[in-house]
Amino acid sequence: MELVTQGDDERWMREALEEARAAEAHGDVPIGAVVVHRDHVIGRGHNEREERSDPTAHAEVTALRAAAAALGSWRVLDSTLYVTLEPCAMCAGAIVLSRIPRVVYGAPDPKAGAAGSVLDVLADTRLNHRPIVDAGVLADECGAILREFFTARR
Amino acid sequence: MELVTQGDDERWMREALEEARAAEAHGDVPIGAVVVHRDHVIGRGHNEREERSDPTAHAEVTALRAAAAALGSWRVLDSTLYVTLEPCAMCAGAIVLSRIPRVVYGAPDPKAGAAGSVLDVLADTRLNHRPIVDAGVLADECGAILREFFTARR
Repeated sequence: MELVTQGDDERWMREALEEARAAEAHGDVPIGAVVVHRDHVIGRGHNEREERSDPTAHAEVTALRAAAAALGSWRVLDSTLYVTLEPCAMCAGAIVLSRIPRVVYGAPDPKAGAAGSVLDVLADTRLNHRPIVDAGVLADECGAILREFFTARR
Repeated sequence: MELVTQGDDERWMREALEEARAAEAHGDVPIGAVVVHRDHVIGRGHNEREERSDPTAHAEVTALRAAAAALGSWRVLDSTLYVTLEPCAMCAGAIVLSRIPRVVYGAPDPKAGAAGSVLDVLADTRLNHRPIVDAGVLADECGAILREFFTARR
């Protein structure tokens, strides 16, 4: 298993933050994700729920689908998913299904997070895959872009 | 909220079983789903994980995306999702996100079911939507098509 080194985590989370800004540009809640495979981004995604009228168009799902397409396999091996916000139940389930070996997220989601905040799908020993999970990378920036978005809309 | 009457459940589950057979036709595990809105199917889906090399191409996700596209909204209101197998964590999460008011499934999934068997995402009072869930409609047929698929592959 070839994973990125921990030292690169901030670099890739900045790419995920770029994706979050792309969501904001069309009025969607700013959440972004990238999948990194052997030091290259092979999948990008940002929240497009409103833009595409699609309840499943979360950053992680879009990035994982793109990564699987790039690899030509539903198994997204030897890769790390970077996402600005803790994954929800759907996205955590997609992570398990994709077999991606590592997940790094920025800010926690106390309302719907499924990597420990509300549910913990990613650590569930009854499911058939458990990724390594690292939290809190650029958490302040990842949280700030969300807070600013909701403040501006009030 | 206009939902189908309980008496129609078998009729719509037969449509979901047709979708399951479409999955089997290309070698994917036979699971199918339909979304019914005011007595019409507005979304169909079947498992295409292998066919499309997409870890998220489960029957429910595809059917919900199609239904949202048909309604022009990520909220899949006034509708029922029929699926031949108990939803996994990803699909249960997608159900919650879509706000669909009712889910009917056929066979239970003791290995990965997230509507009570392993997790119970659909009944979690901490999440912001809880659909009505009815289980066991045509459970024997829904389970048999899966057992036959796996027996034939052994």
